[in-house]
Amino acid sequence: MDEFELIRRYFARAGDGGAGVVKGIGDDAALLSPTPGMQQVQAIDSIVEGVHFPDGCNAADIGYRVVAVNISDIAAMGAVPRWVTLSVSLTGADADWLESFSAGLFTACAEYEVTLVGGDTTSAPVLVATVNATGEVAPGQAILRSGARPGDGIYVTGTLGDAAAGRQGLESGEPSRELLWRFARPAARSDYGRRLAGKASAAIDVSDGLAGDLDKLMRASGTGAEIDLEALPLSPALQTGFDLERQRDFALFGGDDYELLFTCRGQPPDGGIVPVTRIGAVSKVSGLRWFLRGEPVHIEARGYSHF
Amino acid sequence: MDEFELIRRYFARAGDGGAGVVKGIGDDAALLSPTPGMQQVQAIDSIVEGVHFPDGCNAADIGYRVVAVNISDIAAMGAVPRWVTLSVSLTGADADWLESFSAGLFTACAEYEVTLVGGDTTSAPVLVATVNATGEVAPGQAILRSGARPGDGIYVTGTLGDAAAGRQGLESGEPSRELLWRFARPAARSDYGRRLAGKASAAIDVSDGLAGDLDKLMRASGTGAEIDLEALPLSPALQTGFDLERQRDFALFGGDDYELLFTCRGQPPDGGIVPVTRIGAVSKVSGLRWFLRGEPVHIEARGYSHF
Repeated sequence: MDEFELIRRYFARAGDGGAGVVKGIGDDAALLSPTPGMQQVQAIDSIVEGVHFPDGCNAADIGYRVVAVNISDIAAMGAVPRWVTLSVSLTGADADWLESFSAGLFTACAEYEVTLVGGDTTSAPVLVATVNATGEVAPGQAILRSGARPGDGIYVTGTLGDAAAGRQGLESGEPSRELLWRFARPAARSDYGRRLAGKASAAIDVSDGLAGDLDKLMRASGTGAEIDLEALPLSPALQTGFDLERQRDFALFGGDDYELLFTCRGQPPDGGIVPVTRIGAVSKVSGLRWFLRGEPVHIEARGYSHF
Repeated sequence: MDEFELIRRYFARAGDGGAGVVKGIGDDAALLSPTPGMQQVQAIDSIVEGVHFPDGCNAADIGYRVVAVNISDIAAMGAVPRWVTLSVSLTGADADWLESFSAGLFTACAEYEVTLVGGDTTSAPVLVATVNATGEVAPGQAILRSGARPGDGIYVTGTLGDAAAGRQGLESGEPSRELLWRFARPAARSDYGRRLAGKASAAIDVSDGLAGDLDKLMRASGTGAEIDLEALPLSPALQTGFDLERQRDFALFGGDDYELLFTCRGQPPDGGIVPVTRIGAVSKVSGLRWFLRGEPVHIEARGYSHF
């Protein structure tokens, strides 16, 4: 099967039907009609087999994931996702694998209401999937990392640490279904993210663990943070499966949560079915300070580095 | 060196200075101001070590190339390139390699007047570089592949086959400097592409060889083509280095030219220093027909397939 046929068969089903799509897959580039008067956000992220997910992962999960992790970035800007492009480097053109991958990808596209408008497929010795996502936001409403101010509350959506615990379960062969699902199908907080536009003072998505991403957010804002470790939102599944130290370890350093971590001066918007938890406050003094029952505790900084 | 530091050191030099860039590298996503009233085009393309370029290629050439091949797609739509995002999967974080790669990348950005607005770096067992390019075009002026009509002239910019001959020279260890350069530094026809907007009836960039890309163009338009083999523009360097059969072989099936192949009803715009050559005409009958001194000749269809 050549590249042309492969694209037609597995990725061109979206056609030109999406909102704002004049011409989708099948030309040199997609032709789009941006919404008049809106600013645009763009994010690009790759996921690599053996790095971002274990070898032999379910192809549908990989397809879902590469869309979701990019939508998460768009959500962290407070924008509405519109279009995605995909480049995938494949080790072969196995029909079953491709059908599953594209099914997962289109599931995510439907869930986040984005249209796949263009793509590229190449061969490579390892599977690498890259998505570029484009979103729209009203001028002046985008949430940057740099807007946190001393006194703002620090909030996080959902629960932390589940995905990392799920991935570990996958690798150790003892997966908890619920935690595994959190790793396999990360839920980008797209609906809540757009509700934060113009309301949150700063935001980032939690992809590398709370500690590392909070550090980035505070550095970008020139501020520090005081965090109540007991306030960290931890799921029943995580609490059931691990002792407290491990739970906090997954939450602080585990990564792959794709929750939104944000700062807000007043009360944040209601999350509906998504829990929104206040975990601390922005301080003038730089650095992260952790508290347990009101007492400062020392937490060794460590994060995830690809190199 | 962690990812954050790596991005800051090698890729953040563009800052927020580009036209239409509100916030560039360093947040969850880039924040952009599209030009009011314009449509947008987006293309994504990856290049993989050992597939799109031989192992151990000059890092600066790789950085240049991944931008240029995407700008070429934007040019084939008749659009003005504006912004690029980059995702690069690296086998390590070698400082010399990264410095060279980013130098080549920024050379291309300067040449095509685009701003690098976002990126992602990951580790992988093989080097994969992906760029998503965004361009702008006036509504209704974009050139699609589907607009060719019987009687239109068929034109190509520059010369064909040089890059493939250069790559072969590189692999056989006997490179001609001039041909090698055509492979190492493909020139996207960005200036000419935008001049074709609203004038060419259809266009595609020649990345897989003239035969394959012409076939795609004609199929998309529901037309066929009659091509005069003697009219194919071949460079002096190609003509000096190879017999006529090899020259035509490189031109028809070699790939990596990144010239613009387009159809036009009247006289096409002047190319300035870029030669623009009429090589045939669009016909009602589907398929490609090749002629030599007015006589039809049979050319076996073959193209480049990644799988």
